[in-house]
Amino acid sequence: MDEVFKKRVRMPQLREKLMSAAVAAEYVTDGMTIGMSGFTRAGAPKSIPFAIARHADYQNLKITLITGASLGNDVDRVLTRSGILARRMPFQSDPTLRDAINRGEVLYIDQNLSDTSELLRTNQIAPIDVAVIEAVAITETGAIVPTTSIGNNEIFAMQADKVIVEINLSHSLELEGVHDIYIPSHYPHGAPIGILTPSDRIGSTAIEISPEKIAGIVFTDEPDSPSPILPPDEDTSAITGHLIEFFKKEIRLGRMTEHLRPLQSGVGTIANAVMSGLADSPFSHMTVYSEVLQDSTFELMDMGKLDFASGTAITLSPHRAEEVFANFGRYKNRLVLRPQGISNHPEVIRRLGVIAINTALEADIYGNVNSTHVMGTHMMNGIGGSGDFTRNAYLAIFVTKSVAKGGRISSIVPMVSHVDNNEHDVDILITETGLADLRGLAPRERAQAIINNCVGMDYRALMREYVAEANLRGGQTPHVLEKALSWHQRLRETGSMLP
Amino acid sequence: MDEVFKKRVRMPQLREKLMSAAVAAEYVTDGMTIGMSGFTRAGAPKSIPFAIARHADYQNLKITLITGASLGNDVDRVLTRSGILARRMPFQSDPTLRDAINRGEVLYIDQNLSDTSELLRTNQIAPIDVAVIEAVAITETGAIVPTTSIGNNEIFAMQADKVIVEINLSHSLELEGVHDIYIPSHYPHGAPIGILTPSDRIGSTAIEISPEKIAGIVFTDEPDSPSPILPPDEDTSAITGHLIEFFKKEIRLGRMTEHLRPLQSGVGTIANAVMSGLADSPFSHMTVYSEVLQDSTFELMDMGKLDFASGTAITLSPHRAEEVFANFGRYKNRLVLRPQGISNHPEVIRRLGVIAINTALEADIYGNVNSTHVMGTHMMNGIGGSGDFTRNAYLAIFVTKSVAKGGRISSIVPMVSHVDNNEHDVDILITETGLADLRGLAPRERAQAIINNCVGMDYRALMREYVAEANLRGGQTPHVLEKALSWHQRLRETGSMLP
Repeated sequence: MDEVFKKRVRMPQLREKLMSAAVAAEYVTDGMTIGMSGFTRAGAPKSIPFAIARHADYQNLKITLITGASLGNDVDRVLTRSGILARRMPFQSDPTLRDAINRGEVLYIDQNLSDTSELLRTNQIAPIDVAVIEAVAITETGAIVPTTSIGNNEIFAMQADKVIVEINLSHSLELEGVHDIYIPSHYPHGAPIGILTPSDRIGSTAIEISPEKIAGIVFTDEPDSPSPILPPDEDTSAITGHLIEFFKKEIRLGRMTEHLRPLQSGVGTIANAVMSGLADSPFSHMTVYSEVLQDSTFELMDMGKLDFASGTAITLSPHRAEEVFANFGRYKNRLVLRPQGISNHPEVIRRLGVIAINTALEADIYGNVNSTHVMGTHMMNGIGGSGDFTRNAYLAIFVTKSVAKGGRISSIVPMVSHVDNNEHDVDILITETGLADLRGLAPRERAQAIINNCVGMDYRALMREYVAEANLRGGQTPHVLEKALSWHQRLRETGSMLP
Repeated sequence: MDEVFKKRVRMPQLREKLMSAAVAAEYVTDGMTIGMSGFTRAGAPKSIPFAIARHADYQNLKITLITGASLGNDVDRVLTRSGILARRMPFQSDPTLRDAINRGEVLYIDQNLSDTSELLRTNQIAPIDVAVIEAVAITETGAIVPTTSIGNNEIFAMQADKVIVEINLSHSLELEGVHDIYIPSHYPHGAPIGILTPSDRIGSTAIEISPEKIAGIVFTDEPDSPSPILPPDEDTSAITGHLIEFFKKEIRLGRMTEHLRPLQSGVGTIANAVMSGLADSPFSHMTVYSEVLQDSTFELMDMGKLDFASGTAITLSPHRAEEVFANFGRYKNRLVLRPQGISNHPEVIRRLGVIAINTALEADIYGNVNSTHVMGTHMMNGIGGSGDFTRNAYLAIFVTKSVAKGGRISSIVPMVSHVDNNEHDVDILITETGLADLRGLAPRERAQAIINNCVGMDYRALMREYVAEANLRGGQTPHVLEKALSWHQRLRETGSMLP
């Protein structure tokens, strides 16, 4: 243990900061804003949050919790149950927390993931009091080496009065070197972010802060929660098929080469299945400039299809995690993890000409996408990076199955009940029934393309009827306002969007 | 005339390309895509469009017309009446064209203004066949010096097979030198855009193309249409007052200095009045990084309040235009005009930390903004640059009067009928009744801030009633779906949103 300890805490004077999670938790007091590491199940601290929750039992504690994105290891569930969460941003995906948000008990600020660090850096939201950061190690100079995600760690650690580091022995020291920590300069001294290709490194491999700010070091040895990835099904395979045919056509038209362009794919089963499906494509030497690197990233690397991947987190299924982290050296020189303010930065996404592939919760016939709100009111997870990528991408693609809940819900509706990504940005919509290329189309043309290609077969006649009635009313974007949300109302009243 | 001719067409071999507008118009044939100069009434060609419309009488001519933004000098009206317009993008503001769009007769693609040149450059929409560009002069090397706007001129001229130049003698040769033409490099060779402050120049003062592409040169002598700017009224003064108080508070909080940050303001009376109002503020040495430079820009310069202004067009009232262009030397070294792909580029807007002030057509209690569609269906003008700036700004501000049509319309509604700028991006909402600072607020808090500060007095009780009922249904963003658009329906049925 002594040898391990020295390797993990390499600055000698910091070794005296070793403490239990329970003691570290006492730094968190009522009214504080806590910045916590973690992005889509990867890299969340695994003991201090629970100690904070227990500690909350003894006092009336309410905090604002800011993370990278969602957390694994039941952290959000336990913190919600402890009643400690007053405010939460910028993303979550925990069912218990979600319910508390939708009951109005936890105030949730659903943010574009590139924005949080900028708001903090420019002092537009309350500053971080305590940062809780999972780390692989602390270097000779007191710099913090993150684990499987960076998220907003760099701004949390730099801005906090006190930093608590949770060194997790379950993460291999081999992770050191994969990170690229860069803090953009700022008005009036703003300078370009020097990333010209996905593999460019512009920063340091650890988060450099004054070592005096490190108030406590806690050791743990628990792996990240695995990400449950469902295997591709008939529908996701059909979606992938449409996408591959589309890319082939773009190549024939001279718009891309068979290396495509840097790819981003959203979190979750459908987007991961689509990326995995590119294994059976003629495309080669692909690159990824994305947010979360899922199983598909490593599958494509293993097949020799993918040259390089840039992200802010590595979130894998149990089997894949075991395989990747046991052989991390095989991948390390083809990977970089960046702060989410950089992985999702408009400047870089636009410059690289990223192809963005995200999942729509629902879309409408004019190409507006709802990424967040069930029935326009109830939060699912959050917009995440979908907005950052969609609005700056070379090609913004949304995928969804045409129907859900055994056909009772149409994913394509007359008017979405909430808009996260709007008609001005959405280029391509794909369901298992087909692909609609919306580029350069006026709204009336978009409606035809989407109905003819993407709407589920059971809903096409119904949708044509709606459009016919709307067209009689005229306008650039025809609607029958009193019926625009009627499919949602029918679902609410009868349990199905079908009449 | 000979001396004038030589000064305006400085490359001798191009002088033989002089022709009448009628002859030039014959280059335009059925099915073509025409790129035409002009941005918000400034810099549109003033004779060739009319010759094309006349020429259309003799044949069945249908074209796609792409511009910078709206056109002055009745060009859109005359082209619409001639029946020549099949498709139009990316912005317009002409009543005759608007009606044709809303009847579905002209297909209108309403685009973020930074996107059009990228779509053309990457060959994602049909290429330009003929470019018609208003110019001050053609240089010794055949380069085109634009007039009072650049818009998309650079990409039109570079991409077109044939370029027709309309040299307008009413524009002073002094305009030469004010432009900064820069074409961003491209995947896989994308490089940073080197603008670090609003005054940085990174390109050339004229559009450099192969002189052989210049198929015709036509002379005109007609000024730009003036822009009707209404004087500030009580409501716009109140809006400005709220904004100034807000800026003062931000300065007290240490977030800005009294120089503010580079300012953008949308086109139109309210935004111009707000900018003019900054004359009576304690702020000094301000800068502008915007799209359209209106009267207010020059008023602030004359008062010594504004150090520098960057835009893509100069659009002035008759009186102000006379004054500014007669004394252009006084302003020239404090101005730069850029292509709209650069004035509106996400990379630069984000780097400069622009304060964006745009006008909302309607907004809702959660901070979503409709910038385009009356009653969710009928196009007003288009999104213009509001999206480019809002989503990348340091501070995204929307202004609107709380009511319209003598109080029969509330500009703040339960749910907007169309979303152009969404809740994730809108930071500040101002009406004459007050200012809502939405930064860091959850939707339920935003609703309170907006109702208490921005909703018109006659609508507050009604809105509180809606919110109370919505809250009973729960959710992150509570709504009563069947009533969310009921205010619009009531307006349609009764002529007023008031019950």
